[in-house]
Amino acid sequence: MNFTDKLLAASEKNKSLLCVGLDPDPVHMPLSDVLEFNKVIVDATKDLVCAYKPNLAFYEALGIPGLVTLQRTIEYIPDSIPIIGDAKRGDVGHSAEAYARALFSVFNFDAITVSPYLGFDSLEPFISYNAKGIFILCRTSNLSSSDFQDLRIDGFPLYIVVAARAKEWNVHGNVGLVVGATYPKELEKVRSMCPSMHLLIPGVGAQGGDLASAIDYGVGIGGGKPIIAVSRQILYASRDADFAEAARSTAKKIRDQINLYLVDSGGVTSD
Amino acid sequence: MNFTDKLLAASEKNKSLLCVGLDPDPVHMPLSDVLEFNKVIVDATKDLVCAYKPNLAFYEALGIPGLVTLQRTIEYIPDSIPIIGDAKRGDVGHSAEAYARALFSVFNFDAITVSPYLGFDSLEPFISYNAKGIFILCRTSNLSSSDFQDLRIDGFPLYIVVAARAKEWNVHGNVGLVVGATYPKELEKVRSMCPSMHLLIPGVGAQGGDLASAIDYGVGIGGGKPIIAVSRQILYASRDADFAEAARSTAKKIRDQINLYLVDSGGVTSD
Repeated sequence: MNFTDKLLAASEKNKSLLCVGLDPDPVHMPLSDVLEFNKVIVDATKDLVCAYKPNLAFYEALGIPGLVTLQRTIEYIPDSIPIIGDAKRGDVGHSAEAYARALFSVFNFDAITVSPYLGFDSLEPFISYNAKGIFILCRTSNLSSSDFQDLRIDGFPLYIVVAARAKEWNVHGNVGLVVGATYPKELEKVRSMCPSMHLLIPGVGAQGGDLASAIDYGVGIGGGKPIIAVSRQILYASRDADFAEAARSTAKKIRDQINLYLVDSGGVTSD
Repeated sequence: MNFTDKLLAASEKNKSLLCVGLDPDPVHMPLSDVLEFNKVIVDATKDLVCAYKPNLAFYEALGIPGLVTLQRTIEYIPDSIPIIGDAKRGDVGHSAEAYARALFSVFNFDAITVSPYLGFDSLEPFISYNAKGIFILCRTSNLSSSDFQDLRIDGFPLYIVVAARAKEWNVHGNVGLVVGATYPKELEKVRSMCPSMHLLIPGVGAQGGDLASAIDYGVGIGGGKPIIAVSRQILYASRDADFAEAARSTAKKIRDQINLYLVDSGGVTSD
């Protein structure tokens, strides 16, 4: 099943636009075994999410055993739930092809994130996997995103130019964008340009983005979904023995809150 | 020893500004064992280079065994030769810190490449390792690099804005830039702005960049070195049993050619 169909099916079944970020950090984890931790989190949340999103950085930081854990985590997640590899890759020709093979064929991600700085020929090797999803970084959730993404080109900020090009490149319908919830006005602009593209929206929770506006501005009248990515707030809801229950209850609260805002936004009903 | 000192020492000892890209591609390799192939290439070229540069994409594409091979390759390279991890990473806060740990502490690279799209706080976790080298993508060697890198901001192309910011961020003297040999005029502009920063210059060889202008424009009057990265032209100089000799002879030819152009450029002598 292609990424979009899998995403919509999981979203429908679990009545959810919540994507749980599986970013295990030994400093914060209540368990020392990362695979065990991930399995507990997946078991506690798998009926509440539309996707999981492991960020590769946290696995690479644990070396080869971390990458083995990433593979096993991917295998453990039920087939019905799409997995977005948060990789933010971007490289030239042959190297981009090698990254696409690594992420789609070796790690078997259903979708990935990529960085646009190198331009179309660095993204085309990913986009050409037309059953996979490609989320291009557009307006990221961090404070310094303004350093380059806000620079004006003929009156338009760079992130808007990136969104416009991404829309052109979306010939297979598998391209989405990453826009941080920390920048609601920018999210609104991107969404109005790209009403049918799915938006991966981090920045709610630990980073301080507002969930209500993320939903209000993130819903696309052309069917584009706002995929709300939350990591630390759920993973480390408790650092005690009750962490699974705390993760579940936090995930459920956010999922339900998203659905309430969806009803409020008028664009979508919650069932 | 910090990256810059190690680079200059290796460059001096081997009279070389050649960096061999260790990008093993099973389709082109004359041996089936990647580690064996890398060892043969390193043995054949280690007195001819100033650095090695494995691109992580090619190892990730081979899965966990590929990443084990990357680690063993890094261990195999003589300590006196710096290793640049061509990773092109770029992520927010905690994830950037995790990537920096992965690349510098787990894989033990002496330097790495990073992508600037997310701005300063995505690069600061790398730059703060002040004994390590950080090469920020500026004007990349690929055709589509113009998609975004050439866009004009107040009359200046984005890659120039990136170079200007990188120069500001170079408070520890460990920041360099990646500029493709395929864009000699752009290289000249970046070099004139940043005379003391080291430039990692891919694009000579298989990608068609001109070596003479890469050296002529790449030499910095403030001591910044042009590091000429060549991969396929050396690795696959022959696909027969004589591939080690062919790699050595091609590497030697390019190293010597670089040194001749250095004399011609008048900026540096070859001994």
